[in-house]
Amino acid sequence: MRLSSRSHLVIHDPDSIRQRIYDRIGPDLERVEREIQSHLDTDIPLISVVGRYIMNSGGKRLRPLLMILAAKLCGYRGEDDVKLAVVFELLHAATLLHDDVVDNAEVRRKHPAANTLWGNPAVVLVGDYLYSRSILMAVRYNSVDILEVLSSATTRMAEGEVLQLIHADNLEVDEGEYLKIIERKTAVLMSAACQIGVLFGGGSDAEAEAARRYGRHLGIAFQLVDDTLDYMGDVEELGKPVGNDIQEGKTTLPLIFALANGSSRAREELKRIFSAEEISAEDFSRVRELVTQAGGIEYTMKLAEDHVSRAKGALSIFPPQSAREILVDIADYVVCRKM
Amino acid sequence: MRLSSRSHLVIHDPDSIRQRIYDRIGPDLERVEREIQSHLDTDIPLISVVGRYIMNSGGKRLRPLLMILAAKLCGYRGEDDVKLAVVFELLHAATLLHDDVVDNAEVRRKHPAANTLWGNPAVVLVGDYLYSRSILMAVRYNSVDILEVLSSATTRMAEGEVLQLIHADNLEVDEGEYLKIIERKTAVLMSAACQIGVLFGGGSDAEAEAARRYGRHLGIAFQLVDDTLDYMGDVEELGKPVGNDIQEGKTTLPLIFALANGSSRAREELKRIFSAEEISAEDFSRVRELVTQAGGIEYTMKLAEDHVSRAKGALSIFPPQSAREILVDIADYVVCRKM
Repeated sequence: MRLSSRSHLVIHDPDSIRQRIYDRIGPDLERVEREIQSHLDTDIPLISVVGRYIMNSGGKRLRPLLMILAAKLCGYRGEDDVKLAVVFELLHAATLLHDDVVDNAEVRRKHPAANTLWGNPAVVLVGDYLYSRSILMAVRYNSVDILEVLSSATTRMAEGEVLQLIHADNLEVDEGEYLKIIERKTAVLMSAACQIGVLFGGGSDAEAEAARRYGRHLGIAFQLVDDTLDYMGDVEELGKPVGNDIQEGKTTLPLIFALANGSSRAREELKRIFSAEEISAEDFSRVRELVTQAGGIEYTMKLAEDHVSRAKGALSIFPPQSAREILVDIADYVVCRKM
Repeated sequence: MRLSSRSHLVIHDPDSIRQRIYDRIGPDLERVEREIQSHLDTDIPLISVVGRYIMNSGGKRLRPLLMILAAKLCGYRGEDDVKLAVVFELLHAATLLHDDVVDNAEVRRKHPAANTLWGNPAVVLVGDYLYSRSILMAVRYNSVDILEVLSSATTRMAEGEVLQLIHADNLEVDEGEYLKIIERKTAVLMSAACQIGVLFGGGSDAEAEAARRYGRHLGIAFQLVDDTLDYMGDVEELGKPVGNDIQEGKTTLPLIFALANGSSRAREELKRIFSAEEISAEDFSRVRELVTQAGGIEYTMKLAEDHVSRAKGALSIFPPQSAREILVDIADYVVCRKM
């Protein structure tokens, strides 16, 4: 991305910030990994195999780490957080499996998508299993408040996925509708992870609300950057082809902005390209060029940075401490990451 | 079915017993219907349309009625039961939607299966929505005990579905494995509905356990009869083709019994028929004949009747009353029904 050309942005080096996060969060990440692996042994081999495949496909464990860090913000120092934290990774994995079926995906994080290996039926059902299992794990924390936040989140996520499906191949989607989709499909779960971390950690209502806002803005920024990387990212680093969203009929903000604000010639050309049956690699290069020229990339990244600022701002209610610094780093990482 | 030829069975007329159940349960059924319809209005049209289609496709509302009757067994006389009761119908609908995708079904209850009308992506996602929504509705009853039973049930159901998938096209499935599948895919939810009815109605632990056992045996009997009807039922009454299970590669008890206990010539012939690419209508007639001759239908129905007896026996802990009589009628109906 051409971020370095823009003066208002503090430049972060994604590799060094990532390293700093992992240096500080290493022990928690190891706890999360051990806990995840312990849930992948079931007496039904297909569940273990598909579950292990999706859970070990290179995810960043962002959602469980958010929950753990949010609990630490409120002074929690025990080890019981991890069983609740992995609920968010299991839920996330369940949505990835169903997404792969819905999108008829071929590749996920450099590997064949699960549906290409085990077929849609197995992937749908193992997704259902991970989903139910994660709710059951959360139930055992004995808190109706936590379950309310969690199941509201999954309901909203399903709504977001349906909204996205409704708008597949629709070039008329506007920014408001797009934001509604990404809020539900991505931000709601990160937001729930942060809010539940505070509920678990014994924080106040105001702290829970602040954590919820942090997670929400982080999640929106995360998806905005994801959608930008789909235009501008490096195939090798991303682990999936760029231009994926367009192939799957997803009209995301860079394109929405270009269609609304580009020159009339650019708009006509974009519409002509999308009216064709197939979009070739040259077509995609041209789309990228038109979207960039119209300011769609810059606009989307600017919006992501705004949301990152608001995420960091929401943390001000918490006293300065290591967990808060890491959450700030995570927010900064989200906008400078290349994968 | 040739039930009338067997002397040990009290003969019930399914139509009159059904009428008797509906006469007594009519007002509750109306409350359930109104409540279901009120949950099908969402601001996302695709969810409403697919949700309404599957919810209004002729289901018997058995699961919500079980929950309501179980609450009445413990003396509950209010109207707040219905919001919790419909959770079981929404969950059931979610599994039907995902089943249709998994089975690549063409027909459900005399109508085109939802996936043939809206495609797999919409059906997977609306299933996810109904599932999440139902958990959220249950959360609002503020009882971790209820949520534990419910989410244990959905986890076991997903396991049952995966087990069934693993054994697709497998003629080697034995009775034990088959019973494990039907217990999880069918009995567990009915059992949870009954147990949760007692928890909601304020019954004792012993009553909750009795209701759980009633629901479990009822559910096993229900599925045994379903699997028998798939061989012996009337296409018109069933609303789907007979021989469906075989077409979908499901080896159910009538066939399992015949393969284990039929003459060696019958076994060879059955295996020869199943080794072919396609199973014609004549092949299916021959399978039905062989399975019946080997005693597979009689054995399965006898087992269903045993489970119905045990279901009714479990109710003895409750004092005689209308709700108990209706639950006895439901159990009797399950084995004599033709659809």
